[in-house]
Amino acid sequence: MSNEPTPSGLASGETLERAEALLEVTYELLELEDLELLRQVLNKERPADLADLMRRLDEGIRETVFGLLEESLAAEALAESDTHTTLSIVEDMAPQRLSDILDEMEPDDAADVLVDLDREDAEKVLDLMETEGAQEVQDLMAHEEDTGGGIMTSDLISVREEMTVAGAIDRLRQEAEDQDISHLYVTDAEGRPVGVVPVHRLATARPQTPMSRLMSRDLVTVTQETDQEEIARIFSRYNLLAVPVVDMEGRLVGQITVDDVVDVIQEEATEDIYKMAGTSDQEMENPSVFGVARARLPWLLICLLGSFLSGAVIHVFDATLEKVIILASFLPAITATGGNSGLQSSTVTVRGLVTGHVSSGLVLRTIMREIGTAAVIGVACGAAANAAAWLWFKHPLVGICVGVAMFLAISVAVVLGVLVPLLFDRLGIDPAVASGPFITTTNDILGIFIYLGLATVLMGRFM
Amino acid sequence: MSNEPTPSGLASGETLERAEALLEVTYELLELEDLELLRQVLNKERPADLADLMRRLDEGIRETVFGLLEESLAAEALAESDTHTTLSIVEDMAPQRLSDILDEMEPDDAADVLVDLDREDAEKVLDLMETEGAQEVQDLMAHEEDTGGGIMTSDLISVREEMTVAGAIDRLRQEAEDQDISHLYVTDAEGRPVGVVPVHRLATARPQTPMSRLMSRDLVTVTQETDQEEIARIFSRYNLLAVPVVDMEGRLVGQITVDDVVDVIQEEATEDIYKMAGTSDQEMENPSVFGVARARLPWLLICLLGSFLSGAVIHVFDATLEKVIILASFLPAITATGGNSGLQSSTVTVRGLVTGHVSSGLVLRTIMREIGTAAVIGVACGAAANAAAWLWFKHPLVGICVGVAMFLAISVAVVLGVLVPLLFDRLGIDPAVASGPFITTTNDILGIFIYLGLATVLMGRFM
Repeated sequence: MSNEPTPSGLASGETLERAEALLEVTYELLELEDLELLRQVLNKERPADLADLMRRLDEGIRETVFGLLEESLAAEALAESDTHTTLSIVEDMAPQRLSDILDEMEPDDAADVLVDLDREDAEKVLDLMETEGAQEVQDLMAHEEDTGGGIMTSDLISVREEMTVAGAIDRLRQEAEDQDISHLYVTDAEGRPVGVVPVHRLATARPQTPMSRLMSRDLVTVTQETDQEEIARIFSRYNLLAVPVVDMEGRLVGQITVDDVVDVIQEEATEDIYKMAGTSDQEMENPSVFGVARARLPWLLICLLGSFLSGAVIHVFDATLEKVIILASFLPAITATGGNSGLQSSTVTVRGLVTGHVSSGLVLRTIMREIGTAAVIGVACGAAANAAAWLWFKHPLVGICVGVAMFLAISVAVVLGVLVPLLFDRLGIDPAVASGPFITTTNDILGIFIYLGLATVLMGRFM
Repeated sequence: MSNEPTPSGLASGETLERAEALLEVTYELLELEDLELLRQVLNKERPADLADLMRRLDEGIRETVFGLLEESLAAEALAESDTHTTLSIVEDMAPQRLSDILDEMEPDDAADVLVDLDREDAEKVLDLMETEGAQEVQDLMAHEEDTGGGIMTSDLISVREEMTVAGAIDRLRQEAEDQDISHLYVTDAEGRPVGVVPVHRLATARPQTPMSRLMSRDLVTVTQETDQEEIARIFSRYNLLAVPVVDMEGRLVGQITVDDVVDVIQEEATEDIYKMAGTSDQEMENPSVFGVARARLPWLLICLLGSFLSGAVIHVFDATLEKVIILASFLPAITATGGNSGLQSSTVTVRGLVTGHVSSGLVLRTIMREIGTAAVIGVACGAAANAAAWLWFKHPLVGICVGVAMFLAISVAVVLGVLVPLLFDRLGIDPAVASGPFITTTNDILGIFIYLGLATVLMGRFM
């Protein structure tokens, strides 16, 4: 449970509406130039709401507004901000103010801010920070951002097995002033975690009981190198509130708490969704027109190249098309339906690999199911297309070509949609990125080839 | 921190590999018919791992394997299972055994199991359960599954403001035997929550201190009707570990803990991803061939219908196509690139609406950015297509048609990709479902019309 001040005591309901309202009030007070009232309003808000406000404000005035916040609140708001917003706020901030704010932050959050600055600027700020904190922050900055080391915090309480409840409560009094501690870690002589004691057991146990009697020995640990996606999977699988992080020698060096993992899960989901649509979350880091275009163009150009291959296949059949031009009217139906059914099965497969619903042990079952699905969908769409072609042009041969080609195109698309992501996954290539263009292009080419090839053969025989 | 037994004491790393190994061992022991050893192996596993094992096993033998689990472990494993797996296990289970297992479960999890059974079967099981628990479960069953009431648990400890630390610790001793309690709720005379006390403060405070002095008054509450997506947003925004749930009169009726919210976030992300790809998470509830086909067909058929409209547009220009048949070779390039760029911008917009990065206050900024992006992407792809057409067919007019049409098609697609989801969102229609087919179809039709229309005009003039 967080300890933040709140304007209303009891807030509920629409977070987004609150955000809109705060934005309006801020602009109004800025217009009235009543900075004193704005300062009072803002310093009563929650850090997360302030972070959101910063993101919504025009970049030019973020610094002014942020300058009105008290240090500790500024620190918490900054910890909640995304990379792009954070950078726009701190880039031109005086090093002394920034170091004061970072002193107030948890070391992992402070490391996240500094890691995005120029090396030189970051060192200047680190020099101004309190020595002990600066060292912790510097250690954390050494880790990759999306690993256990990158998202862990060094804030935790660890005790030895022999320590008594009375001793542990003393430790708690000294160290837990302004943070909420729900558990203590128990370590052995080498500093390796051997158990965990939920604090409620301290409250109810006798003062002389040693930790070894109270602790639960069931520990899931991760290392500094563990990928954050795997960490999210562990939290969600085992319903954890925190996991200890150990170094190469198995010694306790930090912990990851579930609130950070919630953010990781949201982030990873967004990243996956962006990748599947052929762009990347770089868009959010650099939301300028050119930043967005840079994220999207590679995929578009690869697909454009692929579509020229489809065009080449059409060119091969120019003679057939010229003879029966109405065949051209069904090209969009073949490519669109093939493309869409490929998108469906590849999306389900890629997502299944992330959530663990598809894995090597289940490959055969997954493939068999998709083949069955392809048959059902192919027959349904093929029949619909056949009927449409027949009703429209009263041309039975075109109807047969469209129907059969659609069935085959869908079957190929659906099966490729399962196989290609699984193959890429096994090769160690991210299926979310790689499978999209590959499946779309292959699909279009094969679908068109089947359709026009079939038409050429049938027309040659019967017309 | 969870309290589950574990085979290895300290497990880390690849959750998925563990799952594969357990599946293999199970099949081996089943083949050897050594059920006694299998019983020993399974009863040392974690509930989440057992739930995963059940899902991976063939449906026919799930009941046999599940029957080997001790009641309390069976209860926890069932609580971790997805709807489809749960149903396949409990459908044919003897009501007496099922009621024993449900008695061991937290009331919210038990309600989730029963809600999926036939009404009659559920009532039979409820009758066999312990009276008090059965009542709680029945109350919880009345709520919609994806609301605060549906995901909350009634397990919590609440105390009055006047209660002392000593009294609260006594309550903790009585009620917290086998569960981990990290905080107590404080309520007023009407039962409305007014504060929260983290248990570590009980451990460090004097015995006579009243709750009103220890509690934090900053409470974010939700109601039984609050949508789970909004709840997930609140947790992630304010970094909460639990929120109290209140009824219409503001009285405390339950709480939602972050471990359930982690699952909600994963679920909602999967749901969104499925919807954007034109299918639904019904696929996972009913993963049979017909279940999957039923989820996917509606979208495919709508798009098929749309593609006939594209075909009709092509038909209008049959004369132009017959004259310059190579125009047909660029149809895939126009529709694929338009489709892909529309997919990119609509995906980013739909996801942004979920995460709160796009909202009505930011509409203008978002649209302006996408128009700028459309211009950059359109010029790049248009130039590439123009060059390709020129190099390929040495036909400058076709090159101009392809280039200009591509630029226009992309511009229309990108802008529609932002506007349509925002419009649907404002109309209260889920943009993730509705915007896909609409954008794809509109795009194809407009792109083809622009391309062939332009070609007809230019050819008429210059050839």
